[in-house]
Amino acid sequence: MTAVNRQIRLARRPVGEVRAEDWTHGSEAVPTAGEGEFVGRTRYLSLDPAMRGWLDDRPSYLPPVGIGEVMRAGSVVEVVESRHPKYRVGDHVVGTFGVQEYALSDGRGTLKVDPALAPLSTYLGALGMPGMTAYFGLLDVGALKEGETVVVSGAAGAVGTMVGQIAKVKGCRVVGIAGGPDKCALLTGELGFDAAIDYRAEDVRKALRTHAPDGIDVYFDNVGGEILDAALTRLAMHARVVVCGAISQYNNETAVQGPSNYLSLLVRRARMEGFVVFDYARRYPEAAKELAGWIGAGRIKVKEHVLDGGVDDFPAALGMLFRGENTGKLVLRLA
Amino acid sequence: MTAVNRQIRLARRPVGEVRAEDWTHGSEAVPTAGEGEFVGRTRYLSLDPAMRGWLDDRPSYLPPVGIGEVMRAGSVVEVVESRHPKYRVGDHVVGTFGVQEYALSDGRGTLKVDPALAPLSTYLGALGMPGMTAYFGLLDVGALKEGETVVVSGAAGAVGTMVGQIAKVKGCRVVGIAGGPDKCALLTGELGFDAAIDYRAEDVRKALRTHAPDGIDVYFDNVGGEILDAALTRLAMHARVVVCGAISQYNNETAVQGPSNYLSLLVRRARMEGFVVFDYARRYPEAAKELAGWIGAGRIKVKEHVLDGGVDDFPAALGMLFRGENTGKLVLRLA
Repeated sequence: MTAVNRQIRLARRPVGEVRAEDWTHGSEAVPTAGEGEFVGRTRYLSLDPAMRGWLDDRPSYLPPVGIGEVMRAGSVVEVVESRHPKYRVGDHVVGTFGVQEYALSDGRGTLKVDPALAPLSTYLGALGMPGMTAYFGLLDVGALKEGETVVVSGAAGAVGTMVGQIAKVKGCRVVGIAGGPDKCALLTGELGFDAAIDYRAEDVRKALRTHAPDGIDVYFDNVGGEILDAALTRLAMHARVVVCGAISQYNNETAVQGPSNYLSLLVRRARMEGFVVFDYARRYPEAAKELAGWIGAGRIKVKEHVLDGGVDDFPAALGMLFRGENTGKLVLRLA
Repeated sequence: MTAVNRQIRLARRPVGEVRAEDWTHGSEAVPTAGEGEFVGRTRYLSLDPAMRGWLDDRPSYLPPVGIGEVMRAGSVVEVVESRHPKYRVGDHVVGTFGVQEYALSDGRGTLKVDPALAPLSTYLGALGMPGMTAYFGLLDVGALKEGETVVVSGAAGAVGTMVGQIAKVKGCRVVGIAGGPDKCALLTGELGFDAAIDYRAEDVRKALRTHAPDGIDVYFDNVGGEILDAALTRLAMHARVVVCGAISQYNNETAVQGPSNYLSLLVRRARMEGFVVFDYARRYPEAAKELAGWIGAGRIKVKEHVLDGGVDDFPAALGMLFRGENTGKLVLRLA
């Protein structure tokens, strides 16, 4: 009996919300490592809002996933066969291995990780892309200074939970915007945010007036749309708006909703700046070391939303992100 | 017979386009200078797109003009009476003296100018606020570097003509966006722009692909709306979008059109930044000296659109700006 590698491939380009029919569920034989290669078995699969953008055929920071290709995804794999000089069977490796049970790799763009130092899933969240995104977005792009007021949207998500907690470590006032009372309670409770705004129940603009009375110095935006527009009305002088994502707009079938209040950038002498975390790749070790220190000291809590299942559960899990059903980093743990 | 001071006052807040009924035409006796004051007679009155924003009752970088108040305007006056230690009768002074034939001033925020060094109107244009706006917006906010590609909208206006020519002095490729063949011919002819796009006749997005094939490094935006959105699709990596104004949106009766393509800031690792020229007041002399040098050397051409009339012609003249009927700096020369 040949071992089987189940895979999720892109069947067609989604229009608006991603549907079950946009994917093909299939399988191949498990690959065999050639010279300089290894085969990894997927242990944890990452689910990220950015994945929606990878499905559209338009210019972006990465080429779109091709029709018929295995869906791009970050994951942690365990090496099951190796002819690679740096990796041995039993090693754990993080990389962009795709939505499949087994992946063949020549090691490029991968990193060996140690399950004794941190739980494997952490390398997809707090110590992975979301952690790096929060760290460089807030500190480099946002140029955060001690004592400033930081507002983050998508605050209970993988990036948002990290942004708020890093800002607290840096001595800032932190306001999180999230959907629902449970998420808000998490933010102001366990995660130590100064205030939380439930955008489903509150008028965000009014709530920002209450919770950021002196204006927002750094607004870290994960959501776009109306919440971005509300934040723009409350900028402090020389504010920085960090454009990390716009999850509210990713499933739009019409044009993205542009920020109608962008002229407040002029009135408040403020800037709005975008970034892509990959540009900071050389500095990941620096960030990972600092974040791991804060986590070890209990100053940052790692929030993960772990689903148990198989690669066939990927489409349903992805949908959870866009309905705001996850709290913290969403990962799929493979049996 | 007492000399009369004709004045234009704001009668009510305009909704959308400014109408004749939004103004009151009236007169008062010419004021008399008290100790430390002078009276100036208006020679040149400035017309600026920013005036539209000053009429709305909402938070901005200046308080709105109050109902019943003399309309705020920059002007050059000739001193006709003085009890001010620094100003003598016959001196010419630039300041925010309002839409009236005579103004009383204690000298704060004013500057004596020399008609022997430059024509008086220049102090409202190339060597005045529009010149300062172009200079600091392009060089400081835009952080322009030699050899970059600059695109400016409202290119045939007071600020735009200066932005493009300063960028040429700095060794850049310059593309101007303006309305109509005459303006475009001026840009690529007398003003030395590398290319001009007639937004009324051309698809701006396609034309930018042709004229800025390597992308836009600095986009200096005076207009907002669809042209801003077109420019956002053509940003080079690490581009700077300078938000100077949004004349296409000032008369909107509905919300400002937000830039739907703002997520290209993320893809292109770019920033969009606003500014208010008043913040650079301490550095005006430095800019004026450099600009005067370039003008004197024939490297920058001063473009002015001079109307002859009285303060009663102010409302009609202001309307010309929003219909794009001016080329270069629009001023009203009083008889």
